[in-house]
Amino acid sequence: MDYQGFFKDALDDLREQGNYRIFAELERHCGAFPKATSRGANSAGENALDDVTIWCSNDYLGMGQNPKVLAAMHAALDRCGAGSGGTRNISGTTHDHVLLEAELADLHGKESALLFTSGYVSNWAALGTIAGRIPGCVVLSDALNHASMIEGIRHSKAERMVWKHNDLEDLEAKLAALPLDCPKLIAFESVYSMDGDIAPIAQICDLADKYNAMTYLDEVHAVGLYGPRGGGIAERDGLMDRLTVIEGTLGKAYGVVGGYIAASDELCDFVRSFASGFIFTTALPPAIAAGAAASVRHLKQSTVERDMQKSNVAKVRAKLEQVGIPHVTNASHIIPVMVGDPVKCKFISDVLLKDYGVYIQPINYPTVPKGTERLRITPSPVHSDRDIDHLITALGELWEQCRLARQPIAAQ
Amino acid sequence: MDYQGFFKDALDDLREQGNYRIFAELERHCGAFPKATSRGANSAGENALDDVTIWCSNDYLGMGQNPKVLAAMHAALDRCGAGSGGTRNISGTTHDHVLLEAELADLHGKESALLFTSGYVSNWAALGTIAGRIPGCVVLSDALNHASMIEGIRHSKAERMVWKHNDLEDLEAKLAALPLDCPKLIAFESVYSMDGDIAPIAQICDLADKYNAMTYLDEVHAVGLYGPRGGGIAERDGLMDRLTVIEGTLGKAYGVVGGYIAASDELCDFVRSFASGFIFTTALPPAIAAGAAASVRHLKQSTVERDMQKSNVAKVRAKLEQVGIPHVTNASHIIPVMVGDPVKCKFISDVLLKDYGVYIQPINYPTVPKGTERLRITPSPVHSDRDIDHLITALGELWEQCRLARQPIAAQ
Ligand SMILES: Cc1ncc(COP(=O)(O)O)c(C=O)c1O
Ligand SMILES: Cc1ncc(COP(=O)(O)O)c(C=O)c1O
Repeated sequence: MDYQGFFKDALDDLREQGNYRIFAELERHCGAFPKATSRGANSAGENALDDVTIWCSNDYLGMGQNPKVLAAMHAALDRCGAGSGGTRNISGTTHDHVLLEAELADLHGKESALLFTSGYVSNWAALGTIAGRIPGCVVLSDALNHASMIEGIRHSKAERMVWKHNDLEDLEAKLAALPLDCPKLIAFESVYSMDGDIAPIAQICDLADKYNAMTYLDEVHAVGLYGPRGGGIAERDGLMDRLTVIEGTLGKAYGVVGGYIAASDELCDFVRSFASGFIFTTALPPAIAAGAAASVRHLKQSTVERDMQKSNVAKVRAKLEQVGIPHVTNASHIIPVMVGDPVKCKFISDVLLKDYGVYIQPINYPTVPKGTERLRITPSPVHSDRDIDHLITALGELWEQCRLARQPIAAQ
Repeated sequence: MDYQGFFKDALDDLREQGNYRIFAELERHCGAFPKATSRGANSAGENALDDVTIWCSNDYLGMGQNPKVLAAMHAALDRCGAGSGGTRNISGTTHDHVLLEAELADLHGKESALLFTSGYVSNWAALGTIAGRIPGCVVLSDALNHASMIEGIRHSKAERMVWKHNDLEDLEAKLAALPLDCPKLIAFESVYSMDGDIAPIAQICDLADKYNAMTYLDEVHAVGLYGPRGGGIAERDGLMDRLTVIEGTLGKAYGVVGGYIAASDELCDFVRSFASGFIFTTALPPAIAAGAAASVRHLKQSTVERDMQKSNVAKVRAKLEQVGIPHVTNASHIIPVMVGDPVKCKFISDVLLKDYGVYIQPINYPTVPKGTERLRITPSPVHSDRDIDHLITALGELWEQCRLARQPIAAQ
C-alpha cells in the first residue's frame, strides 16, 4: 500500500470538488476587535492586509478583549503559572477550576457543573458516558446535531434514533414506539449554528416528561447571549430546571476556550468518574479557567453587550433586505447568506477580503451539506455603523458584479 | 427508569471499591514551583495547607513558570485578546498557531505539524482519521497504550490487533499473519507514563519496514525531556525520520496545554481536512500557542532543565533504595512506588499531605489496572535537595508506621 499516495489522492479529490480548505491567517487586534491583520501567508501569494474587519467570529460579544477577562488571565498567569501541570485528578485541579464550575452551575441553576477542555470534548465525553453506561439506553438525536454530539452518541454504542430536525411529531412518534421503561435521552441544540433556528425546548421537555426521557441540550451558540444572565435560550424561556443536562462552551460568546455540562450532582459526578475524555487529559490552564469565570460573571450582570449585539443583528438584517441580498430569516443572531456552491462561495469570500477588507469565511462541506454553501455573518456589539455600511456596500457590489440572485424586496 | 438512582448506585459502587476519586485542590505558586497551597476544600473538612510540595506534577521541567513562556503569553493576551474566536477554519487561525506548528515540525524533523486542543484529542482524532479512512487498515496496538489512543482506534472502526506490551516477537507474529499489501498502522508510546518503561523503537521501525506498516508514536511523556533538542526518545536515538507520525503534548514537559502530530505534509493535511475532532472545535487561544511555542523554542536550546531533572531523578531513586522503599526500576524519569491496594494507597497519600505537606496523588483504577495502585513520583529540576530529603524521610516514616513491605537493600 502506498500510504502517501492515498493521502495525496484524497486531498486532490477535495480540491477538485472545491472543498479543500485554506485557513485564513488572522491576527485580531486586542482592544480594536473586530479589526484584524490578515497575513495571507497561507493563501497562495496574497499579501498581508492590515485593516480587515472580521464578520464571522464566534467571539459573538467581543468578550475576548473585555478588560476584566484579560485582567483575570494576567493575574492567574502571574499567580499560578502557565499550565495546570496534570489531569484533574493528578495535581491539575486548582481553585480557579473549582470557582469556574461553581459559576457555571449557578448560571444554569443546576447543582453542579463539570469542565472539559472544549465544548467538543464535553459533548463527546458526556453523551458517550451517559448513553454508553446506562444499559439499553436509546438516544433520540436531532437530525442536525453538531458533529461532537454525533461522535459522542456513536462512541456510546447506544441505539440511536434520529428525529427530523426540530420536528415534534417525529420525535413523539419515535418516543412512543419505545417501551416506557426503556431508558431514553433526547439530544438537541437550542440555537443551531449554521441556520440560526431555535429548537422548541418547552415542547421537547413536555415530551420528555410524558415518555420518561432525559434531555441533553447543547447551548453552545446561546450561552452568554440569551437570558437575563446569559444562561441561554433555556434561561430566557424559564426552562432550565426542566433539562437534565445543559452543555455549553467558553470559547464562543465567553471569548476564551473550554466546555462544560451543568446538571445534578450525581450526573456530573458520574461523568467525572467514568468519562475517559474527562479523566485522561491535562486540565485547562488556571488562567483559562480564571478568564472564563470572569467572562461568565460579567455577562451575568451586564446586558449592554447582548443589547448592542441584537441591535446590530437587526441593522444588518434590515440593510441586507434593503439591497435584496438573500439570507435565511431566523430568531437568532446568526445571519446565513446562502450561495449554494463551494467554488462561488470561496470566490466571493476571497474578493470580499482582498478588495474590501471584509473577512467572511466561506462555509462548505463537511460543516454544512453540499449544495448549501454559505456566508455566515455574525454581527457583534463591536461592529460600528460604518462597518455595517461598508459590509452592505461590499456585498451589494459583489452581488451586482457576479450577477448573483437577489431577493425580491417586496417578498420581505 | 430512575436515572438519578442509577448514577447514585454507580458512584456508591466506586466508593465501596475504594476507587472514588477526590480531587486535591491545589494552587501552585508561580516562581516557587513545586510549592503550592492545598485548599482541601474538596476533601472532607481538611483545612488549607500553605506549604505543600508537589511530587506528582507532569509539568516535568517546571516550564509552567518559565519567564519566557509567561512573557510570551502575557504579550499575546495584550496583542490578540483571550480566545481565538473560532474554529481553525472560521477565523480561528492566528499567526501564533502557524508559528507553533512550524516550531513543532522542526522539532521532530518533519515536513508539517498539526495542532489540537489536547494530546488526548490529537490521538483520538489522528488515529481515528488515519485508520478509519484507509480502507481495510489494521491497527497493531501495544497492550498498554493510553486511553486516548484506544479511543481513537475504536473510533476508526478499523480492525485492531493488540500486541503484548513492548513484545517484538508478538508484534512480528501479528504483522506476519497479515497480507503484505494490507494497510497497517503500528501504534505505541515511547515512555509509558505509569510504569516508566521505554519501547524498543528502532526494532519496531525495523518490523514496520519489513511488513510495510506505518508507525504512530506517542511521545507525550518524552517530548521536551529527551533528545538534544527535546524531540523525545526518537530524537535521542536518531529515529525520528523512521516514524510516520510522532504525537506529543504541550501540557506536560512544555508546561502549557494542547497536543499535536508531526508527519509528512500530506498526512497532516489529510488529518486537517478530515478529522472531526480537529475541524469542529474552537482553536486554542493565541496566548496558549505563543506560550507553547516559547517553551518548545527554549527547550530546543537549553539543556539545564533536562540535566537537573535527570540528576534529581537519580537522587530520589538512590535514596529510595537506601531506605528500602520498593519502586519500579526503569530507564525514564518516572518513579512508580507500588502499593497494590486502592484504600491503602489513598491513606498513604492523605497522611503524606496532612502530616508532611507532601502531595503525591494515589493512582488507582481506571488509570492503572486494579491491584497495581501506586504512588507515581516525578522529580523535577525545581525540587531542592531539602525537598528530596523531606520526601524520603516522610516515606520512610510512613512505611515504618504502616508496616509496609521494604525492599531488601541488598537486592538493589
Ligand atoms: C453546536 C456546537 N456544539 C459544540 C461545539 C464545540 O464547542 P467548542 O468549540 O468549545 O469545542 C460547536 C462548535 O465548535 C458547536 O457549534
Ligand atoms: C500517553 C499519553 N498520551 C496522551 C495523553 C493526553 O495528553 P493531554 O494531557 O495533552 O491531553 C496522556 C495524558 O494525559 C498520556 O499519558
